[in-house]
Amino acid sequence: MTSKETIRKRLEMLRAEMKSAGIDEYLVTSSDFHASEYVGDYFKVTEYLSGCTSDNVRLLISNDAAYLWTDGRYFISAAEELQDTGIKLMKMGETGVPTPTEFLRQSLGEEMVLGFDGRCVSAHDGEDYRRAAKDRGAEIESVDLVDRIWLDRPPMSSHPVLLLDESLTGEGTDSKLTRVREYLKRFEASYLVLSKLDDIMWLFNFRGRDIACNPVALSYAVVGLETADLFIQSAEVTDEFRTHTRNHLVKLHEYGEVYDYIRDYHFEGRIFADRSSSSDTMIQLLKEKEEVIFGTNPTTLMKAVKNETELGHLREVYLKDSVELCRFICRVERDIGKKPMTEVTAAYELDHLRSQIPGYLDLSFPTISAYGPNAAMAHYAPDAESAGSLLPIGFLLVDSGAQYLGGTTDVTRTIPLGPLSDEMKMDFTLVAAANLRLLYAKFPYGCTGVNLDTFARAPLWKYGKDFNHGTGHGIGYILNVHEGPQNIRWRANKRGKDWAFEAGMITSDEPGIYVEGKYGIRTETITECVDAGSSDQGRFLTFRPLTFVPIAREALDLTYFSEGDRKLFNDYHRQVREQIAPHLEGEELDWLLQATEPIEE
Amino acid sequence: MTSKETIRKRLEMLRAEMKSAGIDEYLVTSSDFHASEYVGDYFKVTEYLSGCTSDNVRLLISNDAAYLWTDGRYFISAAEELQDTGIKLMKMGETGVPTPTEFLRQSLGEEMVLGFDGRCVSAHDGEDYRRAAKDRGAEIESVDLVDRIWLDRPPMSSHPVLLLDESLTGEGTDSKLTRVREYLKRFEASYLVLSKLDDIMWLFNFRGRDIACNPVALSYAVVGLETADLFIQSAEVTDEFRTHTRNHLVKLHEYGEVYDYIRDYHFEGRIFADRSSSSDTMIQLLKEKEEVIFGTNPTTLMKAVKNETELGHLREVYLKDSVELCRFICRVERDIGKKPMTEVTAAYELDHLRSQIPGYLDLSFPTISAYGPNAAMAHYAPDAESAGSLLPIGFLLVDSGAQYLGGTTDVTRTIPLGPLSDEMKMDFTLVAAANLRLLYAKFPYGCTGVNLDTFARAPLWKYGKDFNHGTGHGIGYILNVHEGPQNIRWRANKRGKDWAFEAGMITSDEPGIYVEGKYGIRTETITECVDAGSSDQGRFLTFRPLTFVPIAREALDLTYFSEGDRKLFNDYHRQVREQIAPHLEGEELDWLLQATEPIEE
Repeated sequence: MTSKETIRKRLEMLRAEMKSAGIDEYLVTSSDFHASEYVGDYFKVTEYLSGCTSDNVRLLISNDAAYLWTDGRYFISAAEELQDTGIKLMKMGETGVPTPTEFLRQSLGEEMVLGFDGRCVSAHDGEDYRRAAKDRGAEIESVDLVDRIWLDRPPMSSHPVLLLDESLTGEGTDSKLTRVREYLKRFEASYLVLSKLDDIMWLFNFRGRDIACNPVALSYAVVGLETADLFIQSAEVTDEFRTHTRNHLVKLHEYGEVYDYIRDYHFEGRIFADRSSSSDTMIQLLKEKEEVIFGTNPTTLMKAVKNETELGHLREVYLKDSVELCRFICRVERDIGKKPMTEVTAAYELDHLRSQIPGYLDLSFPTISAYGPNAAMAHYAPDAESAGSLLPIGFLLVDSGAQYLGGTTDVTRTIPLGPLSDEMKMDFTLVAAANLRLLYAKFPYGCTGVNLDTFARAPLWKYGKDFNHGTGHGIGYILNVHEGPQNIRWRANKRGKDWAFEAGMITSDEPGIYVEGKYGIRTETITECVDAGSSDQGRFLTFRPLTFVPIAREALDLTYFSEGDRKLFNDYHRQVREQIAPHLEGEELDWLLQATEPIEE
Repeated sequence: MTSKETIRKRLEMLRAEMKSAGIDEYLVTSSDFHASEYVGDYFKVTEYLSGCTSDNVRLLISNDAAYLWTDGRYFISAAEELQDTGIKLMKMGETGVPTPTEFLRQSLGEEMVLGFDGRCVSAHDGEDYRRAAKDRGAEIESVDLVDRIWLDRPPMSSHPVLLLDESLTGEGTDSKLTRVREYLKRFEASYLVLSKLDDIMWLFNFRGRDIACNPVALSYAVVGLETADLFIQSAEVTDEFRTHTRNHLVKLHEYGEVYDYIRDYHFEGRIFADRSSSSDTMIQLLKEKEEVIFGTNPTTLMKAVKNETELGHLREVYLKDSVELCRFICRVERDIGKKPMTEVTAAYELDHLRSQIPGYLDLSFPTISAYGPNAAMAHYAPDAESAGSLLPIGFLLVDSGAQYLGGTTDVTRTIPLGPLSDEMKMDFTLVAAANLRLLYAKFPYGCTGVNLDTFARAPLWKYGKDFNHGTGHGIGYILNVHEGPQNIRWRANKRGKDWAFEAGMITSDEPGIYVEGKYGIRTETITECVDAGSSDQGRFLTFRPLTFVPIAREALDLTYFSEGDRKLFNDYHRQVREQIAPHLEGEELDWLLQATEPIEE
């Protein structure tokens, strides 16, 4: 952990650079050039400057102050990390807290200069900042000032790519390119400019290793009606991949050349681009072209709806992943109070179990193993020094997943290690009800996550409880564990629409309750969206679980389950037993049978 | 009812006018100049041209075809009305049915002219049409062609206004004007241009009689930081009202002068206007002014949140209204099969009972009394000739309400007149569950109707059932029975945002199930949004019923009620008995006691 003194020094160095560049306020983001949710070390600029490890950060530095915005997942951890740095934490979404743009509308003045590296600022944000600056009579300058002070900055990561066979992808690059080109024609567009890394991986059927846990390669692509251009670091290109691209008439270029290429290329026809994954710099370039239309990348929806090959692999991989998590929970429950365990040793054990599964590539995110009050920090990650010892009391929350050749997993279970308070049991039961009601919801085609979230939150709301994060996110296939376009949350998307669910989408179902200083509970089951038949009222959809791991029956207080909840709980556990039992034996099988015993209906 | 032949003749006359005016396609709407939901006879242009009595209509006439768009409430009735007229019904919102704008994007061509009366076209629609025309190389001409052929067109309605005392409004015009002006200052605006009739009534504390069932006066207003101008037909201005406006420094102008006034007036400062209630003509005029900012009229939200005086009157008036509906249901159930009754005589009886309530002014909409299959038409209104006789079998659906000095009511109950099929009972029970789950929902501050609708629809969706209208609409106070900005429906608002609920809002809760050719069920209870306490998760809200009328227990099939639904059903009926019993006696009291007996929990 960087010392507070170092942080203050770095901020002073940056202020010196700002002064010499004539910049009054400088904004840095936790983004890479692709609006990726997680980024390589090269891009960890906000962490370098503030010590704050949160994602989704905007850090604004002025001559005499600094402000850091992050979202509800990180309020507790960021507050700790920012203590004594002089950086003020701005809790996004809380009443009375201005957004960065609202803040700039106050802080910027006539003839002031706002600086940022436009490649690391999303087009949406860039537009907001530019409008705010314009309205206040201020100027914008796009420049990477941090590079000037960060002398030991890690190099941009670069690893040979992995080509995926059609037995894994279920659809060749030819077919995907054809679908994209048909989509372009429908919009009378001739080019798609892709900045979104997972979309590029999906389209060209390869994977990279440039971001920890996210099997993507830093790249850009321009797909024309006849042509396709891929920008990627040459060190990443294997012979096999070169052949693959040649076979699909994809021309390779050096990664860093993309901005010059776009600037100089004469596009014949309309360009389609996605604001939400393009950088401010890219959009500024595209706007100088003849005609650009903005929308969501067609690849985003195509990628989200998994095909039968992908779904087959996913079901298989989730089953294996579930078996290992069952094994893990069985061992933790067996050993607690008998062998020394910490949050970190527990995480290691689970990570190790997963790594033995055939096709294992990497974790899909750093395992969250959070004991007691630590679990109230929704995305707490322990380090070996500070990790809490596990005691035979209260809850251990474990949120984990991996990348396999066959899919990307994610799952959370909250494991009771011993006696629980009445409040813990009440909350555990309400979270289980929330999880199950959403999992077994039936809803008409056209519903978005805003409609569906009520299924999960209603049982919590009933008791004046709630949680400060989304209920569900889409999940990639051997790709990012957070993947759009669908999600489940109760607040409507302010930028663009909320997406309707489609059969074949993979989405998490992860309600929680967090009591600061006491405990955190989250139950996350990954779901596959499936058809639920049609009536004269149209087509209906529902979910099917991919995750088969018991929800601790001993942590329930049945007072807080309705009759219907009890039935759903037993339905789910009947499925868990059916799926998992054939893969366990001995004490692990005994544990499973006990854990899946029906509760009283 | 206008004959089909007359309709065809009128269309031909219009086509002749189109030809001589050089117009290729002419669009007429069911709107007045104020985007009112219901309109005076003068404005019933779509009905004159098509015979279709639906609201929310757009009728497009070309040289050789005509297309009429309306929404799900009217699909069945409009289909009947349009038969043999040559006009094609376009079912809004159904898959594959283009919107009027999408349609125009196909039908308009280079150098064609699209005509409409811009005063009767909403600004939103006007913009869409103008963009479509522009993209297709077509022109727009704003002209009222129908006036040229409609020789016996009724005059624009004009009635003396009614001034409301502060004992009824709870807030004087001074205070309301101050609030509006403070709002304008926050937006650095100097004027509010109001076209929305109910907003004008609310702001200046008066009511009119220019639209049946909607106590509004045709008017416009321009509120400046120091000035206020009201445009109203001079025949409507009473001495008392003249004094009232003089006391509040409101300058009166003739209604018809507003467009000239806006055109010629030199506005000093920014103008605030609401696109959703301003006509295309008004917006075109405003756009020529220095600076206009668009948003929702501040009066819209202010009006929606009822004050304690209004709420006090509403609770009282809803109680009296509920008592009369109870009396009505008791009599219908007593007399069915014994005395001859039709849909219309039943409606008359209910209307008569209501008219005896002190403070009665008018109905709030024409009573819907729909028997058997007629009730599958969600907004069926019988006429004396075609009205169905009531038989001691199946359901009678009655949706009704009135305007009182004390509030605007609305309520629907579906009354079983005799034996019911299993399917009817199932659907009735599911609708009751839907109604009660929404009524007793608890939810965090910030929720919109999109979040809340799931409470109502979930029990229907579970069985693949649904209904093709919103679950709830806001309701005015001695004003329109449909009032924004809040509503409850599962599809997000495509134009602008969905509004969060506030304590003091009055909203209907009216799920239904309609089986074409068989029956229709709707249960509508009007709710008051109230505080439900705060927790560390913030503030919560819930609803409280204003309507206290039994939901027929004899029509239930308890199989389709969860344990929780049974409890809610009994909770509601305990309240109904408590509220209504003191106001009934004899056989009516006996009926109530029987109707509010608890069901088995």
